Amino acid sequence: MSEAAYVAVDWGTSSFRLWLIDRAGKVLGERRSDEGMMAAGKVGFAAVLQSHLDAVGAAPALPVIICGMAGARQGWVEAGYVDTPAPLASVLKQAAIVPGQDRDIRILPGVAQRDRRAPDVMRGEETQLLGALGLDAAGDALVCMPGTHSKWVSVRGGTVERFATFMTGELFSAVSRETILSHAAAGADEAQDVDAFKSAVMAAFERPALTANLLFQVRSGQLLHGGTASAAREKISGTLIGLELAGGLAGEVPKTAITLVASGRLQTLYQLAFDTVAISVRTIGAEEAVRRGLSMAAAAIWSV
Amino acid sequence: MSEAAYVAVDWGTSSFRLWLIDRAGKVLGERRSDEGMMAAGKVGFAAVLQSHLDAVGAAPALPVIICGMAGARQGWVEAGYVDTPAPLASVLKQAAIVPGQDRDIRILPGVAQRDRRAPDVMRGEETQLLGALGLDAAGDALVCMPGTHSKWVSVRGGTVERFATFMTGELFSAVSRETILSHAAAGADEAQDVDAFKSAVMAAFERPALTANLLFQVRSGQLLHGGTASAAREKISGTLIGLELAGGLAGEVPKTAITLVASGRLQTLYQLAFDTVAISVRTIGAEEAVRRGLSMAAAAIWSV
Repeated sequence: MSEAAYVAVDWGTSSFRLWLIDRAGKVLGERRSDEGMMAAGKVGFAAVLQSHLDAVGAAPALPVIICGMAGARQGWVEAGYVDTPAPLASVLKQAAIVPGQDRDIRILPGVAQRDRRAPDVMRGEETQLLGALGLDAAGDALVCMPGTHSKWVSVRGGTVERFATFMTGELFSAVSRETILSHAAAGADEAQDVDAFKSAVMAAFERPALTANLLFQVRSGQLLHGGTASAAREKISGTLIGLELAGGLAGEVPKTAITLVASGRLQTLYQLAFDTVAISVRTIGAEEAVRRGLSMAAAAIWSV
Repeated sequence: MSEAAYVAVDWGTSSFRLWLIDRAGKVLGERRSDEGMMAAGKVGFAAVLQSHLDAVGAAPALPVIICGMAGARQGWVEAGYVDTPAPLASVLKQAAIVPGQDRDIRILPGVAQRDRRAPDVMRGEETQLLGALGLDAAGDALVCMPGTHSKWVSVRGGTVERFATFMTGELFSAVSRETILSHAAAGADEAQDVDAFKSAVMAAFERPALTANLLFQVRSGQLLHGGTASAAREKISGTLIGLELAGGLAGEVPKTAITLVASGRLQTLYQLAFDTVAISVRTIGAEEAVRRGLSMAAAAIWSV
């Protein structure tokens, strides 16, 4: 077995992922947990990290590179922001050092868009972007990174020019659990209803102003014409993703291909949604992207 | 004191209002409670109604006319629907009689739009419409009835041609309580921030596709530039009402004046919102409208 060179951590609001990595970028060990910023804030970030370092047998001198909400004000150590227009390379140069630790632990900064007409922030996604596009990204890219808070990022020549966050995932949770639609979607199984999803995407994409009405139709349609709980869930999901696509694409066919950074079920849903509105995408796995971005940071900081 | 002629009841999902009314339409007694359909379903509709009839001293022979969710399938007695295009007068002719009662108790039907491309239902608002427009309404009207589930109704010559429900009020509750925005709006006092509200209405009205992004900006704007909890709440409210106006008006200046049926805080907010997008409205109080509609029904059924 090759020797570990550093540890990479993606520390989000509600999730923690750690990889033990060698000089060649090979993963030697891995940990996943739900000890995100919220949980770790109570137990203590240092203790949570150490327990996972012990579990993969990380040597005491091994450096750790971290991205995500651990660098927020309410996180471990505030890692600040790089302001837009933000060269991706500058993210690597402004990592915050966690003080008072035996090993070298650094947290990458987020990116802030301070424009008062469209204020926005990201933390963690800048590292995914690095991994997805690479440091020397030439040309233009429009990147869609779906999630609880989906990010749409315009990158030009390796610089984040503008971005927008759509709280699609969180709206889906709130709408499907905390409104009258919870009855319509109650007991939905995992079965996908592709037709229901696609027609909901198209309806919201074409007439986003009707979103609050299209959502109610999930209920009234079921009342008047029947329908399964799974179909109701897919319609809620499709409506909100269709709304996001309408906003992210701003009603235009993009000049550059879209890069979709997503994994698992989100990847499936967004690929289907883009397909529905006839926009082609290049897909990159979200987890692979963030790990690659962290490795680029480790290489830049420690020459490992 | 004049003699009571009938009792009128507006029985919604979560509210109950009762009026004791004389032949001239004058209110002799009134009751309000939160024993809506949900609460009354547990205790028993007959018992809840009787307790309020006793409280206003209603004689045993006095008839009762009811509108709202008491006529839903999960209500007291299912009162069915009149289908669109629905002449408002037909609502008066299809009241369901509550069986097994000593007095004459009737529940007005709702209105259903069975169009599979835009299924929709209302229950209670048809009675408000009756009261707001009158039985012999000539010409066209576009009526906005804001609430938990706002209704936008196109009426032509006394007939409901089309309508759409926007779940604006419920989205406001879910978004401001159950998402990350709950932190931004936590501790908001009653102070109105008119500028924050109006600019949010305009932003969503002009670019409804950005709704999920505009909502996130409530959080990121506060993070980067500060701002009060009240301003955050007004921005959430303004964004969702602006979205509703964009959908209800379908991007056009309406050919007919808009009739706004609303009371209290909702009346203030929607008047301000319509003013922001430079659409003039004629306002009718929601409670006055439903009571007048119930009186029209009583007159048609019992010639009182």
